[in-house]
Amino acid sequence: MKRPLILATNDDGIFAPGIKALVEVARELGDVIVVAPDSPQSGMGHAITISDPLRLKKVNPFNGIEAYECTGTPVDCVKLANSVLLKDRTVDLCISGINHGSNSSINIIYSGTMSAAMEASLVGIRSIGFSLLDYKIDANFENGKPFIKEIINYVLQNGIPKANLLNVNIPDLPTEDIKGIKVCRQADAMWVEEYTESKDPRNEKYYWLTGKFVNRDQGEDTDVWALKNGYISVVPSMHDLTKHEAIPGLKELEKV
Amino acid sequence: MKRPLILATNDDGIFAPGIKALVEVARELGDVIVVAPDSPQSGMGHAITISDPLRLKKVNPFNGIEAYECTGTPVDCVKLANSVLLKDRTVDLCISGINHGSNSSINIIYSGTMSAAMEASLVGIRSIGFSLLDYKIDANFENGKPFIKEIINYVLQNGIPKANLLNVNIPDLPTEDIKGIKVCRQADAMWVEEYTESKDPRNEKYYWLTGKFVNRDQGEDTDVWALKNGYISVVPSMHDLTKHEAIPGLKELEKV
Repeated sequence: MKRPLILATNDDGIFAPGIKALVEVARELGDVIVVAPDSPQSGMGHAITISDPLRLKKVNPFNGIEAYECTGTPVDCVKLANSVLLKDRTVDLCISGINHGSNSSINIIYSGTMSAAMEASLVGIRSIGFSLLDYKIDANFENGKPFIKEIINYVLQNGIPKANLLNVNIPDLPTEDIKGIKVCRQADAMWVEEYTESKDPRNEKYYWLTGKFVNRDQGEDTDVWALKNGYISVVPSMHDLTKHEAIPGLKELEKV
Repeated sequence: MKRPLILATNDDGIFAPGIKALVEVARELGDVIVVAPDSPQSGMGHAITISDPLRLKKVNPFNGIEAYECTGTPVDCVKLANSVLLKDRTVDLCISGINHGSNSSINIIYSGTMSAAMEASLVGIRSIGFSLLDYKIDANFENGKPFIKEIINYVLQNGIPKANLLNVNIPDLPTEDIKGIKVCRQADAMWVEEYTESKDPRNEKYYWLTGKFVNRDQGEDTDVWALKNGYISVVPSMHDLTKHEAIPGLKELEKV
Protein backbone atom coordinates (compact mmCIF):
# COMPACT_ATOMS: atom_id res chain seq x y z
CA MET A 1 0.00 0.00 0.00
CA LYS A 2 1.17 3.51 -0.82
CA ARG A 3 2.22 5.48 2.23
CA PRO A 4 -0.05 8.45 2.87
CA LEU A 5 1.26 11.97 2.24
CA ILE A 6 0.97 14.14 5.36
CA LEU A 7 1.39 17.91 5.38
CA ALA A 8 2.52 19.26 8.76
CA THR A 9 2.39 22.86 9.94
CA ASN A 10 1.96 24.89 13.13
CA ASP A 11 1.78 28.42 14.47
CA ASP A 12 4.65 28.42 16.95
CA GLY A 13 7.22 28.36 14.15
CA ILE A 14 9.11 25.58 12.40
CA PHE A 15 11.75 25.32 15.15
CA ALA A 16 9.23 24.94 18.00
CA PRO A 17 9.37 21.70 20.03
CA GLY A 18 5.69 20.90 19.41
CA ILE A 19 6.02 20.41 15.66
CA LYS A 20 9.13 18.30 16.21
CA ALA A 21 7.10 15.93 18.40
CA LEU A 22 4.25 15.87 15.90
CA VAL A 23 6.54 15.06 12.97
CA GLU A 24 8.18 12.29 15.00
CA VAL A 25 4.78 10.62 15.36
CA ALA A 26 3.58 11.28 11.82
CA ARG A 27 6.69 9.95 10.06
CA GLU A 28 5.90 6.52 11.46
CA LEU A 29 2.56 6.61 9.63
CA GLY A 30 3.32 8.29 6.32
CA ASP A 31 5.51 10.50 4.19
CA VAL A 32 5.67 13.90 5.84
CA ILE A 33 6.33 17.31 4.32
CA VAL A 34 6.56 20.33 6.61
CA VAL A 35 5.69 23.92 5.68
CA ALA A 36 5.60 26.14 8.75
CA PRO A 37 6.14 29.78 9.71
CA ASP A 38 9.70 31.05 10.16
CA SER A 39 8.65 32.83 13.37
CA PRO A 40 6.03 32.39 16.10
CA GLN A 41 2.51 33.28 14.92
CA SER A 42 0.34 32.65 17.96
CA GLY A 43 -3.01 34.41 17.96
CA MET A 44 -2.90 35.01 14.22
CA GLY A 45 -6.32 33.43 13.70
CA HIS A 46 -7.17 33.02 10.05
CA ALA A 47 -4.94 35.90 8.94
CA ILE A 48 -3.56 35.80 5.40
CA THR A 49 -0.90 37.91 3.72
CA ILE A 50 -2.35 39.93 0.88
CA SER A 51 -0.17 43.02 0.49
CA ASP A 52 3.26 41.44 0.79
CA PRO A 53 5.18 38.76 -1.07
CA LEU A 54 5.83 35.42 0.63
CA ARG A 55 9.01 33.39 0.61
CA LEU A 56 9.79 29.73 1.16
CA LYS A 57 13.17 28.42 2.27
CA LYS A 58 14.18 24.77 2.49
CA VAL A 59 15.40 23.89 5.98
CA ASN A 60 16.31 20.65 7.74
CA PRO A 61 15.23 20.61 11.38
CA PHE A 62 13.55 17.20 11.09
CA ASN A 63 16.40 14.88 10.30
CA GLY A 64 15.76 14.22 6.63
CA ILE A 65 12.08 15.20 6.38
CA GLU A 66 11.39 17.65 3.53
CA ALA A 67 10.70 20.97 5.26
CA TYR A 68 10.22 24.63 4.33
CA GLU A 69 10.00 27.73 6.44
CA CYS A 70 7.61 30.37 5.19
CA THR A 71 7.56 34.10 5.87
CA GLY A 72 3.76 34.15 6.19
CA THR A 73 1.04 33.18 8.63
CA PRO A 74 -0.03 29.57 9.36
CA VAL A 75 -2.83 29.87 6.80
CA ASP A 76 -0.38 31.22 4.22
CA CYS A 77 1.79 28.13 4.83
CA VAL A 78 -1.07 25.79 3.97
CA LYS A 79 -2.13 27.80 0.93
CA LEU A 80 1.44 27.93 -0.41
CA ALA A 81 2.04 24.26 0.30
CA ASN A 82 -1.08 23.20 -1.57
CA SER A 83 -0.79 25.66 -4.44
CA VAL A 84 2.94 25.57 -5.10
CA LEU A 85 4.85 22.73 -3.46
CA LEU A 86 2.18 20.02 -3.60
CA LYS A 87 0.10 21.11 -6.56
CA ASP A 88 0.76 17.86 -8.43
CA ARG A 89 0.42 15.56 -5.42
CA THR A 90 -2.53 14.38 -3.33
CA VAL A 91 -2.27 15.29 0.32
CA ASP A 92 -3.99 12.64 2.45
CA LEU A 93 -3.90 14.49 5.74
CA CYS A 94 -2.91 17.86 7.17
CA ILE A 95 -1.74 18.03 10.79
CA SER A 96 -1.08 21.24 12.70
CA GLY A 97 0.66 21.73 16.03
CA ILE A 98 1.38 20.55 18.60
CA ASN A 99 0.37 23.96 19.91
CA HIS A 100 1.67 25.31 23.19
CA GLY A 101 -1.55 25.94 25.11
CA SER A 102 -5.22 25.12 24.77
CA ASN A 103 -7.23 25.62 21.61
CA SER A 104 -10.38 24.27 23.19
CA SER A 105 -13.73 26.10 23.05
CA ILE A 106 -13.55 29.72 21.85
CA ASN A 107 -9.75 29.59 21.49
CA ILE A 108 -10.29 27.96 18.11
CA ILE A 109 -11.16 31.28 16.52
CA TYR A 110 -7.95 33.00 17.67
CA SER A 111 -5.73 30.05 16.90
CA GLY A 112 -3.25 29.99 14.07
CA THR A 113 -2.85 26.23 14.64
CA MET A 114 -6.54 25.54 14.06
CA SER A 115 -6.88 28.09 11.26
CA ALA A 116 -4.09 26.35 9.34
CA ALA A 117 -5.88 23.02 9.77
CA MET A 118 -9.19 24.58 8.78
CA GLU A 119 -7.65 26.07 5.64
CA ALA A 120 -6.62 22.59 4.50
CA SER A 121 -10.05 21.19 5.39
CA LEU A 122 -11.67 23.87 3.21
CA VAL A 123 -10.03 22.52 0.09
CA GLY A 124 -11.03 18.97 0.94
CA ILE A 125 -8.02 17.73 2.89
CA ARG A 126 -8.76 15.96 6.16
CA SER A 127 -7.11 17.92 8.90
CA ILE A 128 -6.32 17.67 12.58
CA GLY A 129 -5.06 20.40 14.89
CA PHE A 130 -3.29 19.27 18.07
CA SER A 131 -2.71 21.36 21.19
CA LEU A 132 -1.21 20.64 24.59
CA LEU A 133 -2.50 22.43 27.68
CA ASP A 134 0.91 23.75 28.67
CA TYR A 135 2.20 27.19 27.68
CA LYS A 136 5.71 26.67 29.04
CA ILE A 137 8.64 26.53 26.63
CA ASP A 138 9.75 23.24 28.20
CA ALA A 139 6.28 21.66 27.89
CA ASN A 140 6.35 17.88 27.77
CA PHE A 141 5.09 16.84 24.34
CA GLU A 142 5.97 13.18 24.90
CA ASN A 143 3.00 12.28 27.11
CA GLY A 144 0.37 12.79 24.42
CA LYS A 145 2.29 11.00 21.65
CA PRO A 146 0.63 7.55 21.93
CA PHE A 147 -2.81 9.17 21.64
CA ILE A 148 -1.76 11.42 18.77
CA LYS A 149 -0.55 8.36 16.91
CA GLU A 150 -3.89 6.59 17.50
CA ILE A 151 -5.89 9.60 16.32
CA ILE A 152 -3.82 10.15 13.17
CA ASN A 153 -3.98 6.45 12.40
CA TYR A 154 -7.75 6.39 12.95
CA VAL A 155 -8.30 9.29 10.56
CA LEU A 156 -5.99 7.81 7.92
CA GLN A 157 -7.98 4.56 8.10
CA ASN A 158 -11.53 5.87 8.59
CA GLY A 159 -11.56 9.50 7.52
CA ILE A 160 -13.72 11.91 9.50
CA PRO A 161 -17.32 10.97 8.66
CA LYS A 162 -19.58 14.04 8.15
CA ALA A 163 -16.70 16.42 8.88
CA ASN A 164 -13.24 17.23 7.61
CA LEU A 165 -11.53 18.77 10.61
CA LEU A 166 -10.74 17.74 14.19
CA ASN A 167 -9.70 19.99 17.05
CA VAL A 168 -7.68 17.82 19.46
CA ASN A 169 -6.58 19.10 22.86
CA ILE A 170 -4.39 17.15 25.23
CA PRO A 171 -4.35 17.63 29.02
CA ASP A 172 -0.95 18.23 30.58
CA LEU A 173 -0.73 14.87 32.34
CA PRO A 174 1.58 11.86 32.33
CA THR A 175 0.48 9.34 29.67
CA GLU A 176 -0.75 6.86 32.26
CA ASP A 177 -2.98 9.49 33.88
CA ILE A 178 -4.73 10.46 30.63
CA LYS A 179 -8.11 8.77 30.92
CA GLY A 180 -8.75 8.39 27.21
CA ILE A 181 -10.39 10.28 24.37
CA LYS A 182 -13.75 12.12 24.47
CA VAL A 183 -15.53 13.28 21.32
CA CYS A 184 -17.11 16.58 22.31
CA ARG A 185 -18.67 19.82 21.26
CA GLN A 186 -16.94 23.18 21.64
CA ALA A 187 -17.75 24.68 25.05
CA ASP A 188 -19.38 28.10 25.06
CA ALA A 189 -16.58 29.86 26.92
CA MET A 190 -15.05 33.29 26.51
CA TRP A 191 -12.14 35.47 27.54
CA VAL A 192 -12.74 38.36 29.88
CA GLU A 193 -10.07 40.88 29.07
CA GLU A 194 -8.09 42.74 31.64
CA TYR A 195 -5.62 44.97 29.83
CA THR A 196 -2.73 46.09 31.95
CA GLU A 197 -2.13 49.79 31.52
CA SER A 198 1.35 51.25 31.82
CA LYS A 199 3.68 53.94 30.47
CA ASP A 200 6.64 53.48 28.18
CA PRO A 201 10.07 55.17 28.72
CA ARG A 202 8.79 58.20 26.78
CA ASN A 203 5.85 58.45 29.17
CA GLU A 204 3.32 57.33 26.53
CA LYS A 205 0.48 55.15 27.76
CA TYR A 206 0.18 51.59 26.48
CA TYR A 207 -2.06 48.58 27.05
CA TRP A 208 -1.10 44.92 27.14
CA LEU A 209 -3.53 42.06 26.70
CA THR A 210 -4.13 39.73 29.58
CA GLY A 211 -7.37 38.05 30.50
CA LYS A 212 -9.28 35.37 32.28
CA PHE A 213 -10.89 32.34 30.66
CA VAL A 214 -14.53 32.07 31.70
CA ASN A 215 -16.50 28.91 30.95
CA ARG A 216 -20.19 29.74 30.95
CA ASP A 217 -21.09 26.27 29.66
CA GLN A 218 -22.00 23.68 32.29
CA GLY A 219 -22.42 20.80 29.80
CA GLU A 220 -20.53 17.56 30.40
CA ASP A 221 -20.29 16.97 26.65
CA THR A 222 -17.85 19.82 26.03
CA ASP A 223 -14.12 19.96 25.36
CA VAL A 224 -13.49 22.05 28.46
CA TRP A 225 -15.23 19.44 30.64
CA ALA A 226 -13.29 16.57 29.04
CA LEU A 227 -9.93 18.28 29.55
CA LYS A 228 -10.71 19.21 33.14
CA ASN A 229 -11.55 15.57 33.79
CA GLY A 230 -8.34 14.16 32.35
CA TYR A 231 -9.48 13.26 28.84
CA ILE A 232 -8.15 14.24 25.45
CA SER A 233 -10.89 16.25 23.72
CA VAL A 234 -11.71 15.73 20.06
CA VAL A 235 -14.16 18.21 18.50
CA PRO A 236 -15.24 17.78 14.88
CA SER A 237 -15.15 21.32 13.50
CA MET A 238 -16.21 23.23 10.41
CA HIS A 239 -16.16 26.55 8.60
CA ASP A 240 -19.92 27.17 8.30
CA LEU A 241 -20.55 30.01 10.72
CA THR A 242 -24.24 30.31 9.82
CA LYS A 243 -26.53 30.29 12.84
CA HIS A 244 -29.13 28.34 10.87
CA GLU A 245 -31.82 28.33 13.55
CA ALA A 246 -31.89 32.15 13.52
CA ILE A 247 -32.84 32.40 9.84
CA PRO A 248 -36.64 31.95 10.15
CA GLY A 249 -36.97 34.56 12.90
CA LEU A 250 -35.15 37.15 10.82
CA LYS A 251 -37.31 36.79 7.74
CA GLU A 252 -39.30 39.93 8.57
CA LEU A 253 -36.11 41.87 7.93
CA GLU A 254 -36.78 41.12 4.27
CA LYS A 255 -39.89 43.29 4.46
CA VAL A 256 -38.33 46.51 5.74
CA MET B 1 -35.81 57.39 25.47
CA LYS B 2 -32.07 57.07 25.95
CA ARG B 3 -30.15 57.05 22.70
CA PRO B 4 -28.40 53.71 22.11
CA LEU B 5 -24.61 53.54 22.38
CA ILE B 6 -23.05 52.20 19.18
CA LEU B 7 -19.42 51.08 18.90
CA ALA B 8 -18.07 51.35 15.33
CA THR B 9 -14.94 49.72 13.96
CA ASN B 10 -13.57 48.31 10.70
CA ASP B 11 -10.53 46.64 9.17
CA ASP B 12 -9.62 49.11 6.45
CA GLY B 13 -8.42 51.65 8.99
CA ILE B 14 -10.04 54.61 10.70
CA PHE B 15 -9.49 56.93 7.73
CA ALA B 16 -11.11 54.61 5.16
CA PRO B 17 -14.19 55.91 3.34
CA GLY B 18 -16.32 52.91 4.36
CA ILE B 19 -16.29 53.64 8.08
CA LYS B 20 -17.04 57.29 7.35
CA ALA B 21 -20.21 56.25 5.52
CA LEU B 22 -21.15 53.82 8.30
CA VAL B 23 -20.72 56.43 11.03
CA GLU B 24 -22.80 58.92 9.02
CA VAL B 25 -25.69 56.46 9.08
CA ALA B 26 -25.23 55.32 12.68
CA ARG B 27 -25.04 58.81 14.20
CA GLU B 28 -28.63 59.37 13.10
CA LEU B 29 -29.69 56.41 15.24
CA GLY B 30 -27.55 56.64 18.36
CA ASP B 31 -24.46 57.89 20.13
CA VAL B 32 -21.44 56.58 18.26
CA ILE B 33 -17.92 55.90 19.49
CA VAL B 34 -15.29 54.76 17.01
CA VAL B 35 -12.27 52.58 17.81
CA ALA B 36 -10.56 51.41 14.63
CA PRO B 37 -7.11 50.38 13.41
CA ASP B 38 -4.60 53.10 12.54
CA SER B 39 -3.68 51.22 9.34
CA PRO B 40 -5.40 48.83 6.91
CA GLN B 41 -5.83 45.33 8.38
CA SER B 42 -7.55 43.41 5.59
CA GLY B 43 -7.27 39.66 5.80
CA MET B 44 -6.32 39.74 9.47
CA GLY B 45 -9.06 37.27 10.40
CA HIS B 46 -9.43 36.89 14.14
CA ALA B 47 -5.80 37.85 14.85
CA ILE B 48 -5.03 39.38 18.25
CA THR B 49 -1.90 41.08 19.54
CA ILE B 50 -0.33 39.10 22.36
CA SER B 51 3.37 39.89 22.34
CA ASP B 52 3.25 43.65 21.82
CA PRO B 53 1.72 46.58 23.64
CA LEU B 54 -1.22 48.42 22.12
CA ARG B 55 -1.83 52.12 21.95
CA LEU B 56 -4.92 54.27 21.56
CA LYS B 57 -4.90 57.82 20.17
CA LYS B 58 -7.84 60.19 20.09
CA VAL B 59 -8.50 61.46 16.57
CA ASN B 60 -11.25 63.46 14.93
CA PRO B 61 -12.06 62.27 11.42
CA PHE B 62 -15.82 62.11 12.07
CA ASN B 63 -16.74 65.69 12.73
CA GLY B 64 -17.24 65.59 16.48
CA ILE B 65 -17.79 61.88 17.03
CA GLU B 66 -15.54 60.44 19.78
CA ALA B 67 -12.94 58.38 17.92
CA TYR B 68 -9.71 56.52 18.69
CA GLU B 69 -7.16 54.94 16.40
CA CYS B 70 -5.57 51.77 17.73
CA THR B 71 -2.25 50.18 16.82
CA GLY B 72 -3.73 46.67 16.86
CA THR B 73 -5.92 44.43 14.77
CA PRO B 74 -9.69 44.86 14.38
CA VAL B 75 -10.30 42.33 17.16
CA ASP B 76 -7.84 44.20 19.41
CA CYS B 77 -9.88 47.37 18.79
CA VAL B 78 -13.05 45.75 20.05
CA LYS B 79 -11.34 44.18 23.05
CA LEU B 80 -9.70 47.46 24.04
CA ALA B 81 -12.88 49.44 23.49
CA ASN B 82 -14.90 47.13 25.73
CA SER B 83 -12.27 46.60 28.41
CA VAL B 84 -10.83 50.08 28.70
CA LEU B 85 -12.82 52.86 27.05
CA LEU B 86 -16.33 51.53 27.61
CA LYS B 87 -15.89 49.37 30.68
CA ASP B 88 -18.41 51.40 32.66
CA ARG B 89 -20.93 51.84 29.85
CA THR B 90 -23.37 49.47 28.15
CA VAL B 91 -22.78 49.10 24.44
CA ASP B 92 -26.08 48.46 22.64
CA LEU B 93 -24.67 47.59 19.24
CA CYS B 94 -21.34 47.05 17.53
CA ILE B 95 -21.06 47.82 13.81
CA SER B 96 -18.05 47.02 11.65
CA GLY B 97 -17.24 48.19 8.13
CA ILE B 98 -18.27 49.15 5.59
CA ASN B 99 -15.67 46.79 4.19
CA HIS B 100 -14.23 47.23 0.71
CA GLY B 101 -15.12 43.91 -0.93
CA SER B 102 -17.29 40.92 -0.18
CA ASN B 103 -17.32 39.07 3.13
CA SER B 104 -19.95 36.65 1.94
CA SER B 105 -19.58 32.87 2.31
CA ILE B 106 -16.09 31.65 3.24
CA ASN B 107 -14.67 35.19 3.25
CA ILE B 108 -16.07 35.58 6.76
CA ILE B 109 -13.21 33.55 8.22
CA TYR B 110 -10.49 35.72 6.66
CA SER B 111 -12.24 38.97 7.40
CA GLY B 112 -11.04 41.45 9.98
CA THR B 113 -14.37 43.27 9.60
CA MET B 114 -16.39 40.23 10.57
CA SER B 115 -13.94 39.07 13.23
CA ALA B 116 -14.25 42.43 14.98
CA ALA B 117 -18.03 42.11 14.92
CA MET B 118 -17.82 38.51 16.14
CA GLU B 119 -15.55 39.53 19.00
CA ALA B 120 -18.21 41.93 20.25
CA SER B 121 -20.92 39.30 19.79
CA LEU B 122 -18.91 36.88 21.95
CA VAL B 123 -19.21 39.12 24.96
CA GLY B 124 -22.93 39.57 24.44
CA ILE B 125 -23.04 42.70 22.28
CA ARG B 126 -25.28 42.51 19.23
CA SER B 127 -23.09 43.08 16.21
CA ILE B 128 -23.36 43.66 12.50
CA GLY B 129 -20.59 43.58 9.92
CA PHE B 130 -21.22 45.44 6.64
CA SER B 131 -19.39 44.93 3.37
CA LEU B 132 -19.78 46.38 -0.12
CA LEU B 133 -18.94 44.29 -3.16
CA ASP B 134 -16.48 46.79 -4.56
CA TYR B 135 -12.75 46.66 -3.92
CA LYS B 136 -11.98 49.99 -5.58
CA ILE B 137 -10.72 52.87 -3.47
CA ASP B 138 -13.43 55.11 -4.92
CA ALA B 139 -16.20 52.58 -4.19
CA ASN B 140 -19.62 54.18 -3.84
CA PHE B 141 -20.72 53.66 -0.24
CA GLU B 142 -23.78 55.91 -0.67
CA ASN B 143 -25.99 53.42 -2.51
CA GLY B 144 -26.30 50.99 0.36
CA LYS B 145 -26.92 53.63 3.04
CA PRO B 146 -30.75 53.48 3.16
CA PHE B 147 -30.61 49.71 3.68
CA ILE B 148 -27.87 49.95 6.28
CA LYS B 149 -30.00 52.39 8.20
CA GLU B 150 -32.98 50.02 8.04
CA ILE B 151 -30.92 47.06 9.23
CA ILE B 152 -29.31 48.92 12.13
CA ASN B 153 -32.68 50.31 13.14
CA TYR B 154 -34.28 46.86 12.96
CA VAL B 155 -31.61 45.34 15.20
CA LEU B 156 -31.81 48.20 17.70
CA GLN B 157 -35.58 47.68 17.89
CA ASN B 158 -35.83 43.88 17.70
CA GLY B 159 -32.42 42.46 18.54
CA ILE B 160 -31.25 39.41 16.62
CA PRO B 161 -33.44 36.55 17.85
CA LYS B 162 -31.49 33.28 18.39
CA ALA B 163 -28.25 34.91 17.25
CA ASN B 164 -26.02 37.83 18.12
CA LEU B 165 -24.21 38.59 14.88
CA LEU B 166 -25.20 39.50 11.32
CA ASN B 167 -23.00 39.36 8.24
CA VAL B 168 -24.42 41.92 5.79
CA ASN B 169 -23.14 42.19 2.21
CA ILE B 170 -24.29 44.83 -0.22
CA PRO B 171 -24.19 44.43 -4.01
CA ASP B 172 -22.44 47.19 -5.93
CA LEU B 173 -25.60 48.61 -7.51
CA PRO B 174 -27.41 51.94 -7.54
CA THR B 175 -29.90 52.12 -4.64
CA GLU B 176 -32.89 51.82 -6.94
CA ASP B 177 -31.53 48.63 -8.51
CA ILE B 178 -31.03 46.86 -5.16
CA LYS B 179 -33.96 44.43 -5.02
CA GLY B 180 -34.20 44.25 -1.23
CA ILE B 181 -32.84 42.15 1.63
CA LYS B 182 -32.50 38.35 1.74
CA VAL B 183 -31.84 36.46 4.98
CA CYS B 184 -29.54 33.62 3.93
CA ARG B 185 -27.10 30.97 4.94
CA GLN B 186 -23.38 31.18 4.19
CA ALA B 187 -22.64 29.62 0.78
CA ASP B 188 -20.16 26.75 0.73
CA ALA B 189 -17.65 28.49 -1.50
CA MET B 190 -13.85 28.54 -1.46
CA TRP B 191 -10.82 30.28 -2.92
CA VAL B 192 -8.64 28.42 -5.37
CA GLU B 193 -5.21 29.91 -4.95
CA GLU B 194 -2.98 30.83 -7.82
CA TYR B 195 0.21 32.30 -6.38
CA THR B 196 2.17 34.36 -8.86
CA GLU B 197 5.83 33.46 -8.72
CA SER B 198 8.50 36.05 -9.44
CA LYS B 199 12.00 37.20 -8.50
CA ASP B 200 12.97 40.24 -6.46
CA PRO B 201 15.82 42.67 -7.42
CA ARG B 202 18.28 40.41 -5.59
CA ASN B 203 17.11 37.46 -7.70
CA GLU B 204 15.35 35.76 -4.77
CA LYS B 205 12.13 33.95 -5.58
CA TYR B 206 8.86 35.17 -4.04
CA TYR B 207 5.17 34.28 -4.20
CA TRP B 208 2.20 36.61 -4.15
CA LEU B 209 -1.32 35.55 -3.31
CA THR B 210 -3.96 35.77 -5.96
CA GLY B 211 -6.87 33.42 -6.45
CA LYS B 212 -10.24 32.63 -7.88
CA PHE B 213 -13.49 32.46 -5.92
CA VAL B 214 -15.26 29.18 -6.61
CA ASN B 215 -18.86 28.70 -5.45
CA ARG B 216 -19.55 24.98 -5.15
CA ASP B 217 -22.95 25.64 -3.57
CA GLN B 218 -25.93 25.65 -5.92
CA GLY B 219 -28.48 26.60 -3.24
CA GLU B 220 -30.76 29.58 -3.82
CA ASP B 221 -30.85 30.29 -0.08
CA THR B 222 -27.22 31.42 0.12
CA ASP B 223 -25.57 34.81 0.41
CA VAL B 224 -23.70 34.33 -2.86
CA TRP B 225 -26.98 33.66 -4.68
CA ALA B 226 -28.68 36.70 -3.11
CA LEU B 227 -25.84 39.04 -4.05
CA LYS B 228 -25.64 37.72 -7.59
CA ASN B 229 -29.35 38.37 -7.94
CA GLY B 230 -29.24 41.95 -6.75
CA TYR B 231 -30.18 41.51 -3.09
CA ILE B 232 -28.45 42.55 0.09
CA SER B 233 -27.52 39.35 1.95
CA VAL B 234 -27.98 39.04 5.71
CA VAL B 235 -26.52 35.91 7.34
CA PRO B 236 -27.00 35.31 11.08
CA SER B 237 -23.60 34.07 12.22
CA MET B 238 -21.96 32.53 15.28
CA HIS B 239 -18.75 31.37 16.85
CA ASP B 240 -19.63 27.71 17.47
CA LEU B 241 -17.51 25.82 14.95
CA THR B 242 -18.60 22.39 16.18
CA LYS B 243 -19.81 20.10 13.40
CA HIS B 244 -22.44 18.65 15.72
CA GLU B 245 -23.75 16.01 13.31
CA ALA B 246 -20.30 14.44 13.10
CA ILE B 247 -20.08 13.67 16.83
CA PRO B 248 -22.03 10.36 16.90
CA GLY B 249 -20.03 8.86 14.03
CA LEU B 250 -16.76 9.60 15.75
CA LYS B 251 -17.64 7.96 19.04
CA GLU B 252 -15.64 4.84 18.20
CA LEU B 253 -12.54 7.01 18.42
CA GLU B 254 -13.13 6.92 22.17
CA LYS B 255 -12.41 3.19 22.12
CA VAL B 256 -8.97 3.24 20.51
